[in-house]
Amino acid sequence: MAAYDYDLFVIGGGSGGVRAGRMAASLGKRVAIAEEFRFGGTCVIRGCVPKKLFVYASQYREHFEDAEGYGWTLRNSSFDWTKLLAAKNKEIARLEGLYRRGLENSGAEVIDSRAELVDSHTIRIVRTGQTVTAETIVIATGGTPNPHEALPGHEFCISSNDAFDMAELPRSILIAGGGYIAVEFANIFHGLGVETTLIYRGREILSRFDHDLRRGLHEAMVDKGIRIILTDVIEEVTKAPTGALVARTLNGETLSLDTVMLALGRTPNTHGLGLEAAGVAVNERGAVLVDQYSRTNVPNIFALGDVTDRVQLTPVAIHEVMCFIETKYRNNPTAPDHELIPTAVFSQPEIGTVGLSEVDAARRYVELEVFRAEFRPMKATLSGRDEKMIMKLITDAASGKIVGAHVLGHNAGEMAQLLGISLKAGVTKAAFDRTMAVHPTAAEELVTAYSPSYRVRNGERVR
Amino acid sequence: MAAYDYDLFVIGGGSGGVRAGRMAASLGKRVAIAEEFRFGGTCVIRGCVPKKLFVYASQYREHFEDAEGYGWTLRNSSFDWTKLLAAKNKEIARLEGLYRRGLENSGAEVIDSRAELVDSHTIRIVRTGQTVTAETIVIATGGTPNPHEALPGHEFCISSNDAFDMAELPRSILIAGGGYIAVEFANIFHGLGVETTLIYRGREILSRFDHDLRRGLHEAMVDKGIRIILTDVIEEVTKAPTGALVARTLNGETLSLDTVMLALGRTPNTHGLGLEAAGVAVNERGAVLVDQYSRTNVPNIFALGDVTDRVQLTPVAIHEVMCFIETKYRNNPTAPDHELIPTAVFSQPEIGTVGLSEVDAARRYVELEVFRAEFRPMKATLSGRDEKMIMKLITDAASGKIVGAHVLGHNAGEMAQLLGISLKAGVTKAAFDRTMAVHPTAAEELVTAYSPSYRVRNGERVR
Repeated sequence: MAAYDYDLFVIGGGSGGVRAGRMAASLGKRVAIAEEFRFGGTCVIRGCVPKKLFVYASQYREHFEDAEGYGWTLRNSSFDWTKLLAAKNKEIARLEGLYRRGLENSGAEVIDSRAELVDSHTIRIVRTGQTVTAETIVIATGGTPNPHEALPGHEFCISSNDAFDMAELPRSILIAGGGYIAVEFANIFHGLGVETTLIYRGREILSRFDHDLRRGLHEAMVDKGIRIILTDVIEEVTKAPTGALVARTLNGETLSLDTVMLALGRTPNTHGLGLEAAGVAVNERGAVLVDQYSRTNVPNIFALGDVTDRVQLTPVAIHEVMCFIETKYRNNPTAPDHELIPTAVFSQPEIGTVGLSEVDAARRYVELEVFRAEFRPMKATLSGRDEKMIMKLITDAASGKIVGAHVLGHNAGEMAQLLGISLKAGVTKAAFDRTMAVHPTAAEELVTAYSPSYRVRNGERVR
Repeated sequence: MAAYDYDLFVIGGGSGGVRAGRMAASLGKRVAIAEEFRFGGTCVIRGCVPKKLFVYASQYREHFEDAEGYGWTLRNSSFDWTKLLAAKNKEIARLEGLYRRGLENSGAEVIDSRAELVDSHTIRIVRTGQTVTAETIVIATGGTPNPHEALPGHEFCISSNDAFDMAELPRSILIAGGGYIAVEFANIFHGLGVETTLIYRGREILSRFDHDLRRGLHEAMVDKGIRIILTDVIEEVTKAPTGALVARTLNGETLSLDTVMLALGRTPNTHGLGLEAAGVAVNERGAVLVDQYSRTNVPNIFALGDVTDRVQLTPVAIHEVMCFIETKYRNNPTAPDHELIPTAVFSQPEIGTVGLSEVDAARRYVELEVFRAEFRPMKATLSGRDEKMIMKLITDAASGKIVGAHVLGHNAGEMAQLLGISLKAGVTKAAFDRTMAVHPTAAEELVTAYSPSYRVRNGERVR
């Protein structure tokens, strides 16, 4: 007994690590968890949570404008970035405290230090220099924004991490990237009054999402005044004597800006972690390689969440933890299920999606029925706002099963969550048809699409 | 051939009548449709649509307040009722035009007149005095707010019909009733700045809804400043010389108000319709009696929608129409399905619900598992608003099937629509559990409730 100091040592105090530590400790295991920065990880400290708070803040400008069509008159509104930042920081600190207390209450030992592997059972606590041993080790160190060091002038640029804590709001920003982080921040900054430009090397933002949503969101963003530059990249960023940044692009544009933000993907946090010393294998991007049970090539070391670069989402990390607990501590080997994960992009308008895009579905099924609705939401009738919602259901014509559901518009994220249940349950279009509409809602469009807008047969759109 | 002037005569141009006329005409039938007031019926003219527009208008006060916590400062906002009314009227007129054009384009004859039955195949067009004949007749005359003529002073009171067109916004209002119309208007008027009191004879508002939602909404309304008087009724309304109304209640309260609104149920519009002449049977409330195919006791006369007093909802009326079309014109007898109808109450916070309340479920199933979450929505963390969401899933413990799903909070109506699909498909709690969360959303609480909050066995709450 007690050949090791701990039954479980968790490196990384984000959503995954904290849950792993808490669950194992509550099962009576001797657990320690080390975090070098702040408990809560990307999601709580500089991801999902502050991002959504910023989204809320940035939506008020449209609320104020929309109110006029409903009989309201507003005089002078103004926005104070430092007030938002202070409020956000207070809330994040509160959540961080909840995470820490949850761990402490479970009986886990909380270590405020970076931790590195010495060998497959030994961990060095960097702050004290102490080494400890553990029977099982979980690597849950997450990821970090790619700093894109190959870009001349990258040192003048900020990442999403920095965007959460800028001392002042820039007047203008250039955001490089076409993924959801770039897109969400473009909408946030625009909503807060910043002159916003997005630059992306691809031909359309949000690759891998359904093309109707990509195009619909692109148009909506441009309509509200966000500039989007496609098939181009920043070649160099320089700093003018005035302090302004100048970005030169491959296609020869020169843009002058207060701030340049790089949102060019995220890199697993494995650098200097001692993985080589422990014999843990990583892939070419530095992600820890794991089997279907999240076990690394070293049998007593597991890796969970973003550091494995499977699906970088908080709920997925937590699901992987729950499966790890089943596998390791409940004698019930359980592989995480990464199929049909519903997701949201908190752009404005929002995207909610689950299942296959039309293009991907067409590759997998001989014939699709596509039900597509594009309409003005009721609220826009009086606000006069020129916006539209897009809803799309894609079914496998042979079985009637819904294989993709895609929404662009208000509350698309909430809808994706609940559509996700139906898709996971393998529900057919017939069940949608049997469901009574709730009137007036936007979602009723999903149950009142009686005949397909078109079909896709052998990859070709017909009728 | 052509023994009758028309194949189908529809009396009433609301959602049901218009759809019936349009569908039959588009199948090549010779159709006429008569409407004495405005095409669009209750839903478009003085129900769902203008109600929801008013709800939007009334939410801005909270948006303005909430914005402060997000860094915004607003100076002086003001609200102009006549501006809202004009905008609403313009939108309603636009929709009315769409309804009329849809009928005309389908080939139906549109008659702007009251129509009454003379016998089972003959209709009198009241405006011209002309009589016409039809092989089939559809009665779709809807319902109207109960005027409560037994109440002394009822003539000083308004109904929901009038509330949509008041010349000016009252400073104070007393609303009698505990149903969804009373509750929705109480929230609308409060949001627009009217001092609002609700009086209801029952022990809690919204009878037949789940008790947690009833109580939760009641508390939220009181917290925001709406007064709710229960187990009491208005006994008399008098008009003071100043023009103010005085309402005296059974329990001895005297309230002085600008406006009293009665929302005490709705009555089917069958008075003077000639039903006796045609031999059509009605029930004691005046509702047309129909069989499972919406056919009256007179075989060539059908009745659809609110006039039958089954489920008074627009989508239900439209569903009944679609079944009527299948039954009558497509040789495919189809009975409307009134099971598991999802509905919303556009109160503030909103209610969305489908399936059985806990109390009703406990009567039907030996053992229930109840999953209940009550939490502060993320938006409220920075706004500081003291609000909570309630989400509740009720499962039949034996089968795991979800038999009731209930939401109180933002976008509950949208959620009810999509939960409705799952319930209609007979999905089990296990499918909810298998669904990945979308973070951060409110709806994720519905898929992350791993163990029941409590059980109900033989009607008794246990554990």
